[in-house]
Amino acid sequence: MPTREFQRARSPEAKRLREAAILDAARRLGAARGIRQVTLTDIAEAVGMHKSAMLRYFETREEIFLRLTAEGWQDWAPDLAQHVRALERPDADTVAAAFAASLAGRPMFCDLLAQTPLNLERNVSTEKVREFKLTTRDGLGVIVPAVRAALPALTDEDGVDAVATATSLAGTFYQIATPGPDVAELYRSDPRLAHALVDVEPQLTRILASMLRGRLAERTG
Amino acid sequence: MPTREFQRARSPEAKRLREAAILDAARRLGAARGIRQVTLTDIAEAVGMHKSAMLRYFETREEIFLRLTAEGWQDWAPDLAQHVRALERPDADTVAAAFAASLAGRPMFCDLLAQTPLNLERNVSTEKVREFKLTTRDGLGVIVPAVRAALPALTDEDGVDAVATATSLAGTFYQIATPGPDVAELYRSDPRLAHALVDVEPQLTRILASMLRGRLAERTG
Repeated sequence: MPTREFQRARSPEAKRLREAAILDAARRLGAARGIRQVTLTDIAEAVGMHKSAMLRYFETREEIFLRLTAEGWQDWAPDLAQHVRALERPDADTVAAAFAASLAGRPMFCDLLAQTPLNLERNVSTEKVREFKLTTRDGLGVIVPAVRAALPALTDEDGVDAVATATSLAGTFYQIATPGPDVAELYRSDPRLAHALVDVEPQLTRILASMLRGRLAERTG
Repeated sequence: MPTREFQRARSPEAKRLREAAILDAARRLGAARGIRQVTLTDIAEAVGMHKSAMLRYFETREEIFLRLTAEGWQDWAPDLAQHVRALERPDADTVAAAFAASLAGRPMFCDLLAQTPLNLERNVSTEKVREFKLTTRDGLGVIVPAVRAALPALTDEDGVDAVATATSLAGTFYQIATPGPDVAELYRSDPRLAHALVDVEPQLTRILASMLRGRLAERTG
């Protein structure tokens, strides 16, 4: 148990290391079980700290996961932008496919995207919400220019709408696509419930491609 | 306090009345505070029953709100279908506006739509999930034919995609648009956070109109 080595963290570097250890533990548990299943106690146990000591680094469970969501944006935005800029034939379909692939390949980020407005932003200080929103703003600042370079008829608002559509649908579809095991079995066994089976990447690609195609038609008359 | 009159409910009619009283109380509290703020204890107090007695009618808090979501679909689907069928000039824009108006006019339903896959479907029996999914299936069976009558080039899958897009975005945008009071003040006071301000109805109309316009273009070549 690494409890003792965590007892004091007086230097900024030691504090940073502890924060990183807490975030690592939360990331591992969240990826393994889904965010909703991870409590502050679970994280404290995994990192070998007392819960009360951990609260000196993060005020709430939601603050930890909001930080992971911010990291998710910092990882996702440049990767998506690079893929969009590298498209050989940029059009509504290929840009939509790039969005969908980059999100479907990040299941925990999709889980966090759905949790953010419902839960994570509701149990942290406003300063933490500000920090988080500045990170999503930076993400938009990376993605929207790449989308406009690929599809020059689009405006900034169109790019923001594309990101809002993609992130909102990815979050919701991910939740629908990952029910508990009993409900998953129910959906497979009752043919009347076929509409409940969602495959995130193709459905997101299809809807976002139509949205971008329609928006391009609006802009080019 | 109506506690005593609720003590026994032996006939099916008495049972139905008690269920209705519980659902009424949950509906009132949910509309006033938001779903996340309503506990089983709150509902029991509002309806004047002991929590243990209430659990004979609904196994969990989530079962109560899943029932309200099912009622939401039963209220929303025929109303939207009627508005779509009554459109004088049915096109991507007017159909999208009908979806957005009917959802934005039902804020508690939007709240419930976002809670459903994250929370409500996760803490009820699979039989309750089956009942709920059959209700959403009936809703699709009412809305999709109305959308296809308005926009005959569309397929059933297109209609289902339109409903999935509208309900997913309405749920997420509603959550983003209704932060706590401190965060709402933050968004208004920091101009760098303008992207965090969401107005559900116009944004949903704009995105769904583009999606339908693009889908129509795909179907008509």
